[in-house]
Amino acid sequence: MPGRSPDHPPRNTLVHESWGDHAALLARSDAEGAASVGRVQARTLELGGVRLEYGGALPSVTVAFETYGRLEPSGDNAVLVCHALTGSAHAAGRYADASLPGWWDPLIGPGKAIDTRRYFVVCANVLGGCYGTTGPSSPDPATGQPYRLSFPRYTVRDMVRVQARLLDALGVGSLAAVVGGSMGGMQVLEWAALYPERVRALVPIAIGARHSAWAIGLGEVARRAITSDPAWQGGAYPPGRQPETGLGLARAVAMLSYRSFDSFGAKFGRQRVSETRSLLGKSFEIEDYLEYQGVKLVERFDANTYLYLTRAMDDYDLSEGRGRLSGVLGAMTMPALVMGISSDVLYPESEQLELVSLLPRARYARINSPHGHDAFLIEFPQVAAQLRRFLAEFA
Amino acid sequence: MPGRSPDHPPRNTLVHESWGDHAALLARSDAEGAASVGRVQARTLELGGVRLEYGGALPSVTVAFETYGRLEPSGDNAVLVCHALTGSAHAAGRYADASLPGWWDPLIGPGKAIDTRRYFVVCANVLGGCYGTTGPSSPDPATGQPYRLSFPRYTVRDMVRVQARLLDALGVGSLAAVVGGSMGGMQVLEWAALYPERVRALVPIAIGARHSAWAIGLGEVARRAITSDPAWQGGAYPPGRQPETGLGLARAVAMLSYRSFDSFGAKFGRQRVSETRSLLGKSFEIEDYLEYQGVKLVERFDANTYLYLTRAMDDYDLSEGRGRLSGVLGAMTMPALVMGISSDVLYPESEQLELVSLLPRARYARINSPHGHDAFLIEFPQVAAQLRRFLAEFA
Repeated sequence: MPGRSPDHPPRNTLVHESWGDHAALLARSDAEGAASVGRVQARTLELGGVRLEYGGALPSVTVAFETYGRLEPSGDNAVLVCHALTGSAHAAGRYADASLPGWWDPLIGPGKAIDTRRYFVVCANVLGGCYGTTGPSSPDPATGQPYRLSFPRYTVRDMVRVQARLLDALGVGSLAAVVGGSMGGMQVLEWAALYPERVRALVPIAIGARHSAWAIGLGEVARRAITSDPAWQGGAYPPGRQPETGLGLARAVAMLSYRSFDSFGAKFGRQRVSETRSLLGKSFEIEDYLEYQGVKLVERFDANTYLYLTRAMDDYDLSEGRGRLSGVLGAMTMPALVMGISSDVLYPESEQLELVSLLPRARYARINSPHGHDAFLIEFPQVAAQLRRFLAEFA
Repeated sequence: MPGRSPDHPPRNTLVHESWGDHAALLARSDAEGAASVGRVQARTLELGGVRLEYGGALPSVTVAFETYGRLEPSGDNAVLVCHALTGSAHAAGRYADASLPGWWDPLIGPGKAIDTRRYFVVCANVLGGCYGTTGPSSPDPATGQPYRLSFPRYTVRDMVRVQARLLDALGVGSLAAVVGGSMGGMQVLEWAALYPERVRALVPIAIGARHSAWAIGLGEVARRAITSDPAWQGGAYPPGRQPETGLGLARAVAMLSYRSFDSFGAKFGRQRVSETRSLLGKSFEIEDYLEYQGVKLVERFDANTYLYLTRAMDDYDLSEGRGRLSGVLGAMTMPALVMGISSDVLYPESEQLELVSLLPRARYARINSPHGHDAFLIEFPQVAAQLRRFLAEFA
């Protein structure tokens, strides 16, 4: 069965699948009296033309976003939440169709760590994404066909510049905080570099100051998995016929890097799905899990977009064109809460500790977890406690 | 250009490419006065029919092997060296064509850690390999064509049983030591489980008691990369036309797991091969390196064999059919030197420490290295010092 292409933003955008404890945590969160933001709607805004860092341009950019809470007349009680590689603007609440809640729902809501009684929370799908913001899967106005590989290259800085224009349009002045993990953390730091006067506090999570050789290598393997699939057709696969083998394989590699030796060991160990000792059939539960993760991504994420976004991540280097990293980070004088995960093999703690050592007003919060990089989407109580304390003090 | 199929064992069998320090270490090793074993020859022995653990059978198995040093009349001064996934019998010395030396040359020779003035060293290509021992790329006597996927499934235990028959034929009685890293370490432990009376000392390196979910996941991703390549043709690719894209991608994923965040960071960082910010062209040196590693493997290793061997590794579980692991390891009363590598993400030190805790006479030796799993093929001075001390005491 060919994969369904996400021409329209799918409603189920619980981006990283956890071990099922997500639902339990949501239930607990509710039981503790913290309410959901409730029913939410995806909105879009047309921002007009955009010029890009590498010289390209887009005649018209639409941004998909959600907001929770109310913007005060002063325009300065906003918190920007930035999503990761395969994330979307749906960070909290539920759509009317009762699909799964947003990807950080346990952290955003009235009384939750990012308290919507106090903050106006904004989350936007990044430029070049496939969840409603203009990207490679969007129609090129010149042809009516998807841009595909004719979409211009864009960077994390471009993503942030587009977010700034969205915030302008929403009437947001300075941000009480910019918060995000993984690719979201890249945006957090770029925000502080591009618009230091507009950011009052930073929360970069599970990220470093630049993409490492290791992470670039993983990104390249994922891209090769996609582009090696004949169904990719040089990027020209028709809508609804994604390169499911290649994108699924890319996701399987990524999932290994998002978790850890110990988390897979505890969850799957050597449990078999079949006692048949076949060469190529699925034998172990971990194989079944990785295949399932691939199928899920094919259903909800566009393959060409995956190529562009992983390239943007590889190109991410906070110091590029700005001189020495120590100077770039040293100029970020706002308070910062840098979170790292004890078992993260993709963006290991050494990267966060470097940020802490170079940011003038940073504190470090370790998330103790066996779950690897994805822990910022799993260990909600720990993340919530750290966020709550930091925001109470500084935002 | 289609990949060259290794119908004949290639001569260049330096299995894991290091950062170029291999050559420097060899030079140093020579400078310190330790001599090479010199010119060596690959030999083969026909062992007749073999029955396999999972019920299959082979009418005739040829084993390719090398020996260094002299077997004493007592037959008890032998050391068996077991190779890793893509290794071969060429562990030491050089062939007449002056190609690269064997993969553990700095450790094996007169005066070296495994001293060929004292020991008769044997290294054999494993059953089901593609370096001269009967395997999926060998001709099926019934058809004259390569076995390919008609080759029966085999296990690490089968490999060890074939090695035992080879040693019988060579007149080797008990082994002074069995030594090997990674898949070689699996064989070491299976030797002690299958033939405890024949093994006087064990040196398992960078391995655990069973393949983890994490390692199985990596193996599965590699297999899918190969089998997704149309050039694989369901295993029926003609000799000389390997699925080079798939096998190259499998190798790239494997290389990431064989090294480490820090080693790639130190070697490649964010160095670019091109300032062009292209979407799909090579941009960073790490990408170039991973592609190069893939091309090298395609030149020297058979894709179907890669499928079989990674499956044999996934099925590896020392306790399978033997009761509790503590009992299996507890019965191995010979001295053991368990080596682990501080930065190994594929077989992390927790696995070696488990072995040490359950083996009655084990000591642990940590190889301090940033190079990850492959360090046992890179950090020769450390490995040599540990091996030398252990063998002097116990073997």
